[in-house]
Amino acid sequence: MPKKNAFYAQSGGVTATINATACAVIETARKHRGRIGKVYAGRDGIIGALTEDLIDTSKESAAAIRALRHTPGGAFGSCRYKLKGLEDHRPQYERLIEVFKAHDIGYFFYNGGNDSADTSYKVSQVAHKLGYPLVCIGVPKTVDNDLAITDSCPGFGSVAKYVATSIREAGYDVASMARTSTRVFILEVMGRHAGWITAACGLAQDKEGEAPHILLFPEIPFDQEKFLAKVEDTIRKHGYCAIGVSEGVRWPDGKFLSESGLRDAFGHAQLGGVAPLIAQLVKDKLKQKYHWAVADYLQRSARHIASKTDVLQSYAVGKAAVELAVKGTSGVMPVIVRKPGKRYRWTIGVADLRDVANAEKMMPRDYITADGFHITAKCRQYLEPLVQGEDYPPFRNGLPDYVKLKNTAVPKKLATSFKI
Amino acid sequence: MPKKNAFYAQSGGVTATINATACAVIETARKHRGRIGKVYAGRDGIIGALTEDLIDTSKESAAAIRALRHTPGGAFGSCRYKLKGLEDHRPQYERLIEVFKAHDIGYFFYNGGNDSADTSYKVSQVAHKLGYPLVCIGVPKTVDNDLAITDSCPGFGSVAKYVATSIREAGYDVASMARTSTRVFILEVMGRHAGWITAACGLAQDKEGEAPHILLFPEIPFDQEKFLAKVEDTIRKHGYCAIGVSEGVRWPDGKFLSESGLRDAFGHAQLGGVAPLIAQLVKDKLKQKYHWAVADYLQRSARHIASKTDVLQSYAVGKAAVELAVKGTSGVMPVIVRKPGKRYRWTIGVADLRDVANAEKMMPRDYITADGFHITAKCRQYLEPLVQGEDYPPFRNGLPDYVKLKNTAVPKKLATSFKI
Repeated sequence: MPKKNAFYAQSGGVTATINATACAVIETARKHRGRIGKVYAGRDGIIGALTEDLIDTSKESAAAIRALRHTPGGAFGSCRYKLKGLEDHRPQYERLIEVFKAHDIGYFFYNGGNDSADTSYKVSQVAHKLGYPLVCIGVPKTVDNDLAITDSCPGFGSVAKYVATSIREAGYDVASMARTSTRVFILEVMGRHAGWITAACGLAQDKEGEAPHILLFPEIPFDQEKFLAKVEDTIRKHGYCAIGVSEGVRWPDGKFLSESGLRDAFGHAQLGGVAPLIAQLVKDKLKQKYHWAVADYLQRSARHIASKTDVLQSYAVGKAAVELAVKGTSGVMPVIVRKPGKRYRWTIGVADLRDVANAEKMMPRDYITADGFHITAKCRQYLEPLVQGEDYPPFRNGLPDYVKLKNTAVPKKLATSFKI
Repeated sequence: MPKKNAFYAQSGGVTATINATACAVIETARKHRGRIGKVYAGRDGIIGALTEDLIDTSKESAAAIRALRHTPGGAFGSCRYKLKGLEDHRPQYERLIEVFKAHDIGYFFYNGGNDSADTSYKVSQVAHKLGYPLVCIGVPKTVDNDLAITDSCPGFGSVAKYVATSIREAGYDVASMARTSTRVFILEVMGRHAGWITAACGLAQDKEGEAPHILLFPEIPFDQEKFLAKVEDTIRKHGYCAIGVSEGVRWPDGKFLSESGLRDAFGHAQLGGVAPLIAQLVKDKLKQKYHWAVADYLQRSARHIASKTDVLQSYAVGKAAVELAVKGTSGVMPVIVRKPGKRYRWTIGVADLRDVANAEKMMPRDYITADGFHITAKCRQYLEPLVQGEDYPPFRNGLPDYVKLKNTAVPKKLATSFKI
């Protein structure tokens, strides 16, 4: 296979470690100069490819690329922009191939969640039909931990470590204040459909009685009476009550407890604000003083408390993606495989994009206790390895020293433009 | 002076480093066994003294006390319970002396903010009038950084480091998402009357264009039109806009933008929920997509990202308190003194409790830019040293390993009880 340039793009919500994957893709590509020419990144994800707005990563120093490993956010910009069905929207896919052809791109690396795996798969199909040689690799990433096949998702371990650390710390705070002031603390976390992040809060509880006392999962319909009784019982027993709640928790009729009304480009409701709603309930029905926090973007960008395991895995999938590509393997996604045995060990495996695309991995019911308010030992066993190890960024002047790349544009070659 | 026991209590909202002060008080007292017998801590602060609910810290191992240095929250419990005026509520003060007498307590260490300095001062007055020899020392603590005389307040540097780190990290996230999704991010932080914590967010901005772009201070009346114009302008220039907002921001008529309706025992309104209100404005008036976070207790318990300078200072005031006490100095508070010179150096000084009591140190107007939306170079110069250095707690099983003390009760000696 002749030497070709590569295209890399970040998709969907970013994470504390997606740039570690970008770092791996670029560093590994630079080690295969015989096969891979330049790595072009899409400015703002796949939109960069559609609009021929490419970033030349070869203009970045080795030190700058290395610093991506410890920098949160998406260094080249990401987007919520889902390529639609092949039948009705073929021009989008053909446009991608047109741009790739113009820039001699033979490798397509798409770093995202289920939607992105689907896009990667469709792009590989179109390239094949058009007879354009393109190696298409999906690279996993999502804080939601809901990708199929992979044992865990790069980005999740770090948000898990953040939320568990945060609710443990807040628990110490509330416990101190409970005698005369706050008795109920509510932390709202992400996870629209799958309760993985909510479950991760549960890791903070080493012993019965410790925070968090109650978890509210999107998988378990919200039972107001049962919840309030549990809060009262917890305060009676332990003096205070710390609650982790998913943004996606729903009433028994399936409606989200709180919707902000906005929808993102994928048509998902933009949620937020369940914590104040739960707080209001606690105040109205139990007359207890409360505090609430909404972690929002803080949780998925908290690179300062990233899981070392997660950083290693995020890097490993990027490296594996390039190694698969130079071997000519297409239509796949490198995944994390948990090895059997008591001690946690992992390796990189390979999944077909078709099998990952648009599937959602839900929490097994036996990861949630029978009463629906906490995680089981089995869940803890699954989650615990993912938050192991610290990987602190360098600090400068008291704050994490993150990199901003130059993001130099590649000169356009096409006379045509494309409207998003 | 004969050997006497000591009483130590934590007061008001706790911090990530108040236990570092407790650690210092106990460790230093243990070094002065000739003068100080046991250190008794008040369970839930001053309430523990009033109700004769004392904790015998001598039952704790040296390792457990040492671990307080890296443990957030208040290890013995705190309370929001203000002793009222001497004239009308003398029995409270007399009760304190009765309990101290029963337990042979000759040293009173009260670890808190302005209210606590006031209480310490009154207790010293009553003890004097009753002819009971009692050394009274206030020990500074507050995330609000609003104590008079001391250059900075133990606990503040760590919340400052947390909020600056958080808004920097979220800024990287929003910048990545701005093309097709979130353009405005709002982080709500604490600071009811003084904008010190809001100002600390500003440290994250190294260069123009970086997050945070806008700060909303409690000192500056909220001007909706000017604010919305600034948001629009920021998005036009930089593509996104990150905003740090104080929970205490007010309309021009002095009303808080958001009040939850609850009031704490000091009569302060319990605030929270300004961020969603600002978000709503941004959505309604500018049609921009937003995300918002409310850090709440996370910010003041985030021991995992504590400022080393703050930890050192929190320890130093506790140590100095005991050293002042064994010298017989009463009615004072050890404070942080910034030494003159370009390089930041600090030492411990001594202030009269009378001068600290109930005073509030506001942000100087020249710490806020003329337009009211950011901090000045002068403010940065003041704040920057306070967030320097990291002081990571030990981790166990992927999470910070904090200590829970045994908190063994001291047997009661009084037949009388006291109703709170």
